[in-house]
Order: sequence, then C-alpha cells, then structure tokens
Amino acid sequence: MKFEEKTIATEPIFSGRVIQVQVDTVTLPDGEQAKREIVKHPGAVGIIPITADGKLIVVEQYRKALNRSIVEIPAGKIEPGEDLTVCALRELEEETGYGTQNLTYLQEVVTSPGFCDEVVHIFVARDIFKLDNPAALDDDEFVEMSAITLEEAQNLMAQGAICDAKTIIAVMWLYNQQRK
Amino acid sequence: MKFEEKTIATEPIFSGRVIQVQVDTVTLPDGEQAKREIVKHPGAVGIIPITADGKLIVVEQYRKALNRSIVEIPAGKIEPGEDLTVCALRELEEETGYGTQNLTYLQEVVTSPGFCDEVVHIFVARDIFKLDNPAALDDDEFVEMSAITLEEAQNLMAQGAICDAKTIIAVMWLYNQQRK
Repeated sequence: MKFEEKTIATEPIFSGRVIQVQVDTVTLPDGEQAKREIVKHPGAVGIIPITADGKLIVVEQYRKALNRSIVEIPAGKIEPGEDLTVCALRELEEETGYGTQNLTYLQEVVTSPGFCDEVVHIFVARDIFKLDNPAALDDDEFVEMSAITLEEAQNLMAQGAICDAKTIIAVMWLYNQQRK
Repeated sequence: MKFEEKTIATEPIFSGRVIQVQVDTVTLPDGEQAKREIVKHPGAVGIIPITADGKLIVVEQYRKALNRSIVEIPAGKIEPGEDLTVCALRELEEETGYGTQNLTYLQEVVTSPGFCDEVVHIFVARDIFKLDNPAALDDDEFVEMSAITLEEAQNLMAQGAICDAKTIIAVMWLYNQQRK
C-alpha cells in the first residue's frame, strides 16, 4: 500500500451518538511519527428519488453544523447491522413518504477522507409511489419535501441552497441522464 | 429560517490541529431539546488542474481515516486568514509542482452537513506550467502525482480508487466539459 501509515497508538477522545473521535499516532513512510485526528462515522445512504415526470424529490432541513437550512436529497445514517438497501428504503419512506420497488446502487462517496471515514452510499429510486402509512421521522428531525425540476435544482445550486456533496452529485447525475 | 434550532448550550470536547469537536444543546421547532455533535473544520480548497491535452492532474495519497491510499484532486486546508485563491495556488504548487495564471472558481461543496461545517472550495486551473522551484509539501505529507485521461478517471472511479466527493465532482465536471 503506497505511503502506508502504521498506527502505533490510538487515543480515544469522544464517543457520541453519531460520531467517535480519536487521535492516532502513526509512523510515516520516512520513519517519522505524526498525529492523525480521526472522526469515525457509521456511514450513510443518500437516495435520488425520480418522479414519473423526471423531477427530483428533495428535502429542506435545518443543519446545526451550518446554522442554516439547506436542500438535500433524502439521506440518513446506517443503523448498526442494517442492510444498505433496507436503510435506503427506510430513509426514503421516513423523509418523503414514498416507496419504490426500483432501487439501484449508483456510487459510494467518501465525504472527507482527510479526517473522517464516512461513506455515503448513493441509490437511485425510480417508479416511486406514495405509501399509505409511512413510518415517521425521528423525534428530532424536521424536514419539508418538494419535487423540483433539473432547472430548479441548478438554480438552487447557484444560490447555495443546494451545496452538499451528495446532492451536487445527484444534480450532476440528473443533468447527465436528461441530456442523453 | 425554516426549522431553526436555537443553541442553548455548547460543550467543548476537543480542540485539535485540524478539527474542533463540540456538543450543542438545541431547542427544536416543537420546543423539545436535542443534542447535536458538531465537528468544526477550517475549510479547504480543491483544485481541478487540466493539462493542455485535457488530462486531469491527480495525487495519490494514504488516508489514515480510510486505512488506504486513494486518488484525489490536489487539495488542502485553508490556513488562518488565508485568501482562497492564494490557498488554491499554494496547494497546487506544493502537491503537483504546477502553477497557473488561469484559476477560476467552480463550486462550494459542503462535505457532511449532518455533523460538520467543512466547506471545500473547488477551483479549475487551466494553462498550467511546471514551476522551477516549487514549495515543498508539509513534513507529514507524501503524495504521488499523475496526469490521467477522463477515461482513466472513470475507470479509477469504477474501481473505488477515486471515491471522495470533491474528486467525483471533478470527474463529472470534466465529463460534461469534454462532452460539449
């Protein structure tokens, strides 16, 4: 493995509900030592739900880390031991009330490789339909769903309301789909 | 602001060289309280350097958080008070030995809005040229540069060697450029 860094000590810093933080001491390729601050995350799914008329389903929600509301594709953390497809269908249901029997895997996205192991698994959901009694959101989640055209998505991106990596990738993917 | 969460307490957890970690207690839109684990990051730049023959300059480096080497566009943290353009030119020089007088701003990318405030500012560098005496990398950085075609980039993405958000966005952007 090129430029491998061997861990010689791990100092646990924080174990939370979402993340764990640790500082690893590593040996560098030249024999010197360095510290690496590392955030561990359970991983997440993101879903690109496409309506029959080619619109993208998005959710607006407040993100405390940014201190503002942004527009994203539906997404959520993987529960311990949860299958990725099960997780994607659960998050789609909870955040949008939609179901699908046409879910395909698109792409794995590492969000911040410099300090974090988070991987977001992106799925595409086609032939979506409204569920009669969808599962509810978590108690601390508040989201507002809408269906937007590619052009509306591009405008939201230009305005900064769409700004996160998984949703930018979703909009670029939709652009390539609809250009074909 | 839709669904705003008001901070009523901030517990500092960790202050490192790269990240700071805190747990905020917030009031939710329904009046209930919740905890938010938050990672603060100084922000970063990513550069898409394009050669005269349309190749993408990438760097391979070991990422301790992932325990493997991956292929990324050149990138790096913003120093305190540093101008974004200055930062982009510095990282391009340190990681690739290239300079440019044709740098344009492409896109702001929030990597993990669920728990982290990191923003990566993506630039495109055209008309790049080899610098005679480029600045060196930081002592704990080891990277290997190469110039790859769009097709090679897409193959690396399919193999998982290109997997991080900013580089996926760079490859999708290059695809759109070369399709025109």
